[in-house]
Amino acid sequence: MGAVQSFREMCDRPKNTNVRLSLPAVCIVWQTAMIILFGVFIRYNEESDTHWVEYKKENNIPSDIENDFYFRYPSFQDVHVMIFVGFGFLMTFLKRYSFGAVGFNFLIAAFGLQWALLMQGWFHSLDYTDGKIKIGVENLINADFCVAGCLIAYGAVLGKVSPVQLMVLTLFGITLFAVEEYIILDLIHARDAGGSMVIHTFGGYYGLSISWMLYRPNLDQSSRLQGSVYHSDLFAMIGTLFLWMFWPSFNSAITDHGDGQHRAAINTYLALASTVLTTVAVSSLFQKHGKLDMVHIQNSTLAGGVAVGTAAEFMLMPYGSLIVGFCCGILSTLGYIYLTPFMEKYMKIQDTCGIHNLHAMPGVIGGIVGAITAAAASESVYGAEGLINTFDFEGEFKNMVPTKQGGHQAAGLCVAICFGIGGGILVGFILRLPIWGDPADDNCFDDEPYWEVSHRSSDYIHPAE
Amino acid sequence: MGAVQSFREMCDRPKNTNVRLSLPAVCIVWQTAMIILFGVFIRYNEESDTHWVEYKKENNIPSDIENDFYFRYPSFQDVHVMIFVGFGFLMTFLKRYSFGAVGFNFLIAAFGLQWALLMQGWFHSLDYTDGKIKIGVENLINADFCVAGCLIAYGAVLGKVSPVQLMVLTLFGITLFAVEEYIILDLIHARDAGGSMVIHTFGGYYGLSISWMLYRPNLDQSSRLQGSVYHSDLFAMIGTLFLWMFWPSFNSAITDHGDGQHRAAINTYLALASTVLTTVAVSSLFQKHGKLDMVHIQNSTLAGGVAVGTAAEFMLMPYGSLIVGFCCGILSTLGYIYLTPFMEKYMKIQDTCGIHNLHAMPGVIGGIVGAITAAAASESVYGAEGLINTFDFEGEFKNMVPTKQGGHQAAGLCVAICFGIGGGILVGFILRLPIWGDPADDNCFDDEPYWEVSHRSSDYIHPAE
Amino acid sequence: MGAVQSFREMCDRPKNTNVRLSLPAVCIVWQTAMIILFGVFIRYNEESDTHWVEYKKENNIPSDIENDFYFRYPSFQDVHVMIFVGFGFLMTFLKRYSFGAVGFNFLIAAFGLQWALLMQGWFHSLDYTDGKIKIGVENLINADFCVAGCLIAYGAVLGKVSPVQLMVLTLFGITLFAVEEYIILDLIHARDAGGSMVIHTFGGYYGLSISWMLYRPNLDQSSRLQGSVYHSDLFAMIGTLFLWMFWPSFNSAITDHGDGQHRAAINTYLALASTVLTTVAVSSLFQKHGKLDMVHIQNSTLAGGVAVGTAAEFMLMPYGSLIVGFCCGILSTLGYIYLTPFMEKYMKIQDTCGIHNLHAMPGVIGGIVGAITAAAASESVYGAEGLINTFDFEGEFKNMVPTKQGGHQAAGLCVAICFGIGGGILVGFILRLPIWGDPADDNCFDDEPYWEVSHRSSDYIHPAE
Repeated sequence: MGAVQSFREMCDRPKNTNVRLSLPAVCIVWQTAMIILFGVFIRYNEESDTHWVEYKKENNIPSDIENDFYFRYPSFQDVHVMIFVGFGFLMTFLKRYSFGAVGFNFLIAAFGLQWALLMQGWFHSLDYTDGKIKIGVENLINADFCVAGCLIAYGAVLGKVSPVQLMVLTLFGITLFAVEEYIILDLIHARDAGGSMVIHTFGGYYGLSISWMLYRPNLDQSSRLQGSVYHSDLFAMIGTLFLWMFWPSFNSAITDHGDGQHRAAINTYLALASTVLTTVAVSSLFQKHGKLDMVHIQNSTLAGGVAVGTAAEFMLMPYGSLIVGFCCGILSTLGYIYLTPFMEKYMKIQDTCGIHNLHAMPGVIGGIVGAITAAAASESVYGAEGLINTFDFEGEFKNMVPTKQGGHQAAGLCVAICFGIGGGILVGFILRLPIWGDPADDNCFDDEPYWEVSHRSSDYIHPAE
Repeated sequence: MGAVQSFREMCDRPKNTNVRLSLPAVCIVWQTAMIILFGVFIRYNEESDTHWVEYKKENNIPSDIENDFYFRYPSFQDVHVMIFVGFGFLMTFLKRYSFGAVGFNFLIAAFGLQWALLMQGWFHSLDYTDGKIKIGVENLINADFCVAGCLIAYGAVLGKVSPVQLMVLTLFGITLFAVEEYIILDLIHARDAGGSMVIHTFGGYYGLSISWMLYRPNLDQSSRLQGSVYHSDLFAMIGTLFLWMFWPSFNSAITDHGDGQHRAAINTYLALASTVLTTVAVSSLFQKHGKLDMVHIQNSTLAGGVAVGTAAEFMLMPYGSLIVGFCCGILSTLGYIYLTPFMEKYMKIQDTCGIHNLHAMPGVIGGIVGAITAAAASESVYGAEGLINTFDFEGEFKNMVPTKQGGHQAAGLCVAICFGIGGGILVGFILRLPIWGDPADDNCFDDEPYWEVSHRSSDYIHPAE
Repeated sequence: MGAVQSFREMCDRPKNTNVRLSLPAVCIVWQTAMIILFGVFIRYNEESDTHWVEYKKENNIPSDIENDFYFRYPSFQDVHVMIFVGFGFLMTFLKRYSFGAVGFNFLIAAFGLQWALLMQGWFHSLDYTDGKIKIGVENLINADFCVAGCLIAYGAVLGKVSPVQLMVLTLFGITLFAVEEYIILDLIHARDAGGSMVIHTFGGYYGLSISWMLYRPNLDQSSRLQGSVYHSDLFAMIGTLFLWMFWPSFNSAITDHGDGQHRAAINTYLALASTVLTTVAVSSLFQKHGKLDMVHIQNSTLAGGVAVGTAAEFMLMPYGSLIVGFCCGILSTLGYIYLTPFMEKYMKIQDTCGIHNLHAMPGVIGGIVGAITAAAASESVYGAEGLINTFDFEGEFKNMVPTKQGGHQAAGLCVAICFGIGGGILVGFILRLPIWGDPADDNCFDDEPYWEVSHRSSDYIHPAE
């Protein structure tokens, strides 16, 4: 107990937000490490290498249009926009933490995608003939996906951590992600095209656990900065809408060519449309005079996209997608109204962006929907070949059947939750060390400690107000 | 006359903007109805169904890349951005109605696209073997198009209606749209790839007629809120630019594979470029000291895209596109300067966003340009096969000739105008009922009645100012 | 000297910013000229013409998906967003010049792309059988590229010139661009897919030379307006992020089908990611308390994309891309810290947006990286066919070897620098004529002279403050 006690005391020293040495050091050292590791491990794959012209001939590929680039690049760019503009601007809603929202999101995503290419590459794209990771556009998409998990976690601790802590959160987050993804997709053979489990459930619980470890009892000292202003809410809507519009691309980006991508896009489009209506309904119903709350419109409208992530490539049916979206809009909005305050008051989880309602809970729902949809799959609906294609019942999983697949899906969900909570506690412990330059309790939600902010601008809210 | 009198009186009761029951009720009931109707009617088509793998073999389709998804999905996503970010942010220019602009746009678009999938599906995608509507990416694009008509109409009544009224406007708007579209495209066999007639002319007159029915003689009581502030004009430019940039995708999204999509994109790109220069010219010429007016730059620069909507897939020729854009930039800007005030003063049409200048008038021009271009088509320019392909002179229209097609195009335009005006008057009559929670005359253009707005933010303009 | 003297005096007359005659005149006359020239010269190419259906048969093209539209249109749209939203919003950072930034960017891009289609068409797409320029989607991309050079130059003179001057800058800029591009790509046979030399080096030095010619010794009279406000910095981040995200499309838009586009996208993605980390590192290291400066985050994070422009299509290798990005982030940020103030103080170059650090210097680095990478190319890495394909060693360049190609690349870089500086001085001389309506020294960086701006908005900063 003495050790814990002294750890506690160490953590409670006066805060110093100067990151002038630690931030550059982390950036330069890690980027240098990336260059070395990329030099050792990463090469172009056969579709992005100049040998493609020979590869085409050898494999009787009739045209350049068969290059995976043309199947996936448009979706990749949509996903890329979601990562940088979508997540970045969604978090700009705070009245004076917009630089940190969009800027640190930018920083950790740019770092995370490099580390993800390596981590995921070792698990999935390693060419055993020469020990190199061979990358193409699908790897870029997966790297962006991997980063999404960490950006979700950032939402829970928004405004309460230093950029150095975020870099650490990302380094470990990507690592944990790659491992749980390998377990869920390869070992357990669960399907999770849009990442309800792998991305959202993991990322959500990872962030919530970190937030719980970093609980600040005196956070109300920063309450003056915890709201939004009119135009910061509008900036956040840019993030919301780009996430909402491009979510069909997110869920279909790495699904099977042809009907797989097509169906995933349709299902996601429908689920999201449905979510908007129930979000508006619940938001209006639970406010005085029926007024809508921007927090709900900005966030809960996206829950349907999370919740069809797993099942989007299955024969969920258009009405199935609408039902999933319907339920998630209601649950997510109720989460913002009841659960977030409850969790802050009784469970010591301060969830700045309400990621529990937007990612963790809808992610779990998505995992369950995926398990049910998979278990209910049948040859009569999918066709014999379609069933094999969709669930990848090939190789060592040749004898898999839908009901069993449903069980595997559920197992995958459990792994995601465990990795999220376990990893978050571990990383939270590390982030409590008093060396990271995080802000004091009365200095949260403020760009001042980490950004040069002009003090004379009229639209800047001073602490005194 | 007694009935009219009592209807008038009923409409003049004090306003109550509380939508706490009506808005949730409409959202939940209609969304539930959508789920039921989708369950009964909507299924995947052969390109988004798991049977695609068998369909491919049966039809000797050599590769997944031939799936319509890869022809149209990038354009679909561009159109999607236009609908949600383009239209949504274009209307954020008012100093304190930005939440309503982007938020209600979001709500009615999300509802409208579901209803559009059903309505358009019954007319165009019904599989008579099993009575189901089979959907794919082209249906999603058409649903977004259909929604665009209602969003245009929203522009005319922006700030003066309740969200419940907007839901009603959308329900009827989509219904009317689907019927007029069926008449124009299928019965009359007019071509209208970019929807100059079907979308813009219809949507424009629909909105203007509703605005006329909802005329508010004392709207000047809200004049303090009718302007923009510096940053709200910048938010509106986000909408303008995404509309402007992606308009080539809008006009080419559902044209023929190959040269059809290619040519439509080129024509639209050129028309829009030309419009910018003449808009700037007229805006500068008619202001004191030659200063530019943001209203013109935000809106009139888009008129060229509207006006090549019909003819974009024809051999309009690059210079033809420039000419159309040239004229529309001038006319649209003059419309903002002279017509909008005239219509408000003498015709009792209060057109908040000036949709007459951006959609209705350029839409009519587009219809006329389309009729002329079609009538002037010849085998020497199009090639024998090209002529048949472009105008779809097949099946029962095998004996159609270009001059006759020109007449059909003109007939289509008339139908669009009639449906717009007639439908608008009808729906306007319904919207005058005193049950929808619309704001009072001194409470328009204000987010306050329908949104939780922080009152202490420094960038929020209080009524007293 | 007498002539120079009187020219000086003429230039120093009191400023009159009224462009009510000159701006409309330039717009209308030039747009009319475009219509006439397009009428004489520009037609659809075989892929956008209705004869495509016959062309397909004659050339045994099996499917519409082989139309170049499907290879390049998604990238085109991304480039289009970079030109209008990317460049436009990147320059909105000034507290009261946002209308001018995004509005004039819109104007000159819309004009420039038309003139570019003609100029580039005469050099590259002229069909000698009928003397017509045949255009398709690749021409649209190249026109957007050509415009980018002028928008870069606008960055140097932002806030200090009139819209008429910008139109002149663009007319000459496009013309010079087309000539230098022809020399570099066709005569010298340098490769420059992403335009490090052709676009960024040329555009950068063109703008810097013009800025030098238009030096304003008393510009500090406008210093009150030279900073940003909180939300203007956020608007600028919209520009930054769309440039950053879509840069892979920019560098891959016109590269070879298949592996060429694929590899260029990967290289650019990686270089940009690396740049973000070193930019953050240097920005933090050189500021008091390690605070980040928004100017660096908005600009230097993009330098890596510029610097891999030439080599992105080569076998630069993933780690090579990271190294290029690493160096550019550091150099560009140091440029903002040391070089920009130095150039203003000692070299009379007032570079509003710091284009030297974002475009000129990284462009030169890109040219050098391209030369080295080309010179180091070998059959063992590229494959025999790959080498020929990548460097286009065909026709009259059949006997070219990589080392020689390296020399040609270097020669291309020199041509770009010469055209930029020489052209800039020439055009700067023309722009000093006192007929263009440019603002006085105490009236710069202000939308007031050229835009109707509401004076009562609370978020508008008055000069007196």
